[in-house]
Amino acid sequence: MNAPPSAPTFEEIRRILRDLPGPDLEAQTRVVDRQTELTKPPGSLGRLEELAEWLAAWQGRAQPRVERPRVAVFAGTHGVARRGVSAYPPEVTRQMVKNFLNGGAAINQLAGAIDADLRIYELDLEHPTEDFTTAPAMSEARTANAMAYGMMAAEPGIDVLCLGEMGIANTTTAAALCAALFGGTGADWAGPGTGVQGTALANKIEVIDEALARHREAIAGRDPLTLLAAVGGEELAAIAGAIIAARMGHIPVLLDGYACTAAAAVLFAADRRALDHCRVAHRSVEPGHTRLLATIGQRPLLDMDMRLGEASGAALAVPILKAAAACHNGMATFAEAGVSGKA
Amino acid sequence: MNAPPSAPTFEEIRRILRDLPGPDLEAQTRVVDRQTELTKPPGSLGRLEELAEWLAAWQGRAQPRVERPRVAVFAGTHGVARRGVSAYPPEVTRQMVKNFLNGGAAINQLAGAIDADLRIYELDLEHPTEDFTTAPAMSEARTANAMAYGMMAAEPGIDVLCLGEMGIANTTTAAALCAALFGGTGADWAGPGTGVQGTALANKIEVIDEALARHREAIAGRDPLTLLAAVGGEELAAIAGAIIAARMGHIPVLLDGYACTAAAAVLFAADRRALDHCRVAHRSVEPGHTRLLATIGQRPLLDMDMRLGEASGAALAVPILKAAAACHNGMATFAEAGVSGKA
Repeated sequence: MNAPPSAPTFEEIRRILRDLPGPDLEAQTRVVDRQTELTKPPGSLGRLEELAEWLAAWQGRAQPRVERPRVAVFAGTHGVARRGVSAYPPEVTRQMVKNFLNGGAAINQLAGAIDADLRIYELDLEHPTEDFTTAPAMSEARTANAMAYGMMAAEPGIDVLCLGEMGIANTTTAAALCAALFGGTGADWAGPGTGVQGTALANKIEVIDEALARHREAIAGRDPLTLLAAVGGEELAAIAGAIIAARMGHIPVLLDGYACTAAAAVLFAADRRALDHCRVAHRSVEPGHTRLLATIGQRPLLDMDMRLGEASGAALAVPILKAAAACHNGMATFAEAGVSGKA
Repeated sequence: MNAPPSAPTFEEIRRILRDLPGPDLEAQTRVVDRQTELTKPPGSLGRLEELAEWLAAWQGRAQPRVERPRVAVFAGTHGVARRGVSAYPPEVTRQMVKNFLNGGAAINQLAGAIDADLRIYELDLEHPTEDFTTAPAMSEARTANAMAYGMMAAEPGIDVLCLGEMGIANTTTAAALCAALFGGTGADWAGPGTGVQGTALANKIEVIDEALARHREAIAGRDPLTLLAAVGGEELAAIAGAIIAARMGHIPVLLDGYACTAAAAVLFAADRRALDHCRVAHRSVEPGHTRLLATIGQRPLLDMDMRLGEASGAALAVPILKAAAACHNGMATFAEAGVSGKA
């Protein structure tokens, strides 16, 4: 990773969050009006209609477009991985990054299937974050640098941004972050992740509870960015940065599973409207995800029992957005087609 | 519609149903074995893994393929439409067929988005079926002709077949058919369809109950094909025929919403294994669909609050199958990628 020369401070990020642009209500209204004229019973395309409105509102165009999707996968390494919280050894993060670059991972196939621009963003893989049971995972500067790095994923010209992550131990990080942001214990937010169970899962829960005890004061302070530094990770900070930059750049965002949504939830905790340009693409089978979705008020687009990360669920949902845009833009109206209205 | 020269009799169709080919267990086993070697935690692609197995089993190939999907929409006219059961006048069926042929309907956009071969199959639109509250909707010969016509949709070379329908009043037909096949009353199986409510919905329910009373004896006989003739419709018979032909031709099938699944349920009532090569693509918001899904033991791939028909839900799910095949065929194994296994 190369951090941009002047990473923002937390104070600057807070200022940006206080002043996020809203939806384009004119574009949205034009979509709503046109929907009623298209050759279908009113509302019969269900969520596709809602998604066309959402795309229009956040792209700022009455004819929503899903032609240049980007899939951005952020990889980070976690000090807490040393605590045996994952079914896989920590080196798998770097091995999987190599697999991404060689085209062999699930996300390569999924991005290929939707003809998306796949980018892998490596955070500082040589230097894991601190083990957050004993210290803050990251300094403010490291966290802000990672956020700034993530912002680069929201380049102009992209019309949808799919976000995801790779990082052994990051469902532990996600669970700790959710508990820190929204309350609850390790048992409330932890799950099998890559496949831990029994005593290994009990250890994972205990590690999270240790972290919550260690950062009791920071948690009491209720500052989301401080909590991201305390119990988050670099790839999660980068995702939060990408979400902010996408908002500024009028790019709707598809969020992947638990770790990705936990990163986004930092922004939700700062401002309830901060994720209005984001949709959770897929409900992970990781149980904490369902709890988190209820907390942030999101209904996922897909429910395919996946729990992989890598932006896999986000990429899988892109064709749904394409379909929503295609129906909205391409359908004939009742008048154009000479079809009778309601009897 | 031009019926093939020698449409089968019900007796011949029953014989075919007794002797349907089963899954290719060798291809399926090879997929199951390979899944465990791919660079992901076991099971972490969830339903995508299950779909890769299903495609392999029914295509009869260990490398499932979703490159030539066909979307087949069958249009039929219903005598019962005269009874005011729809929010739209009966002529909309033919107007919408024209809209399909001109490229202006939702299914045109959805089929275009997945690069599918879209075919519109018109049944005998000039001659509606009988009003089934007073007589059987169709003779055995007309029903069998429609089934034979539908069989033509499952042409060799197609690797997935998406089925759907257009026919004003056919949620009334679907509800009557489900009640005849599986028990229950009009109120159990009827819903708003294109948008009827209040007294119009009460009328729809009453019409279905009249039909159930009229065909009491046929219902007691429990012969699914006889019930399809009694309270079905031509486009539903054609869908049932297409499903049978797809099974013979090793083509997996995606079923659309309520009317399409009701047509498929005729075959399920004849043989519990008759739909093993079919997946319901989308859960319609029509309430009868959820009841029907529970009856036939299907969990839909998508839940997008749609209720349009036209194979819209089926076409929308094709990218999910493409993704399943792409991941299965294209991912690297742990050995190939040099990624460590579980700790």
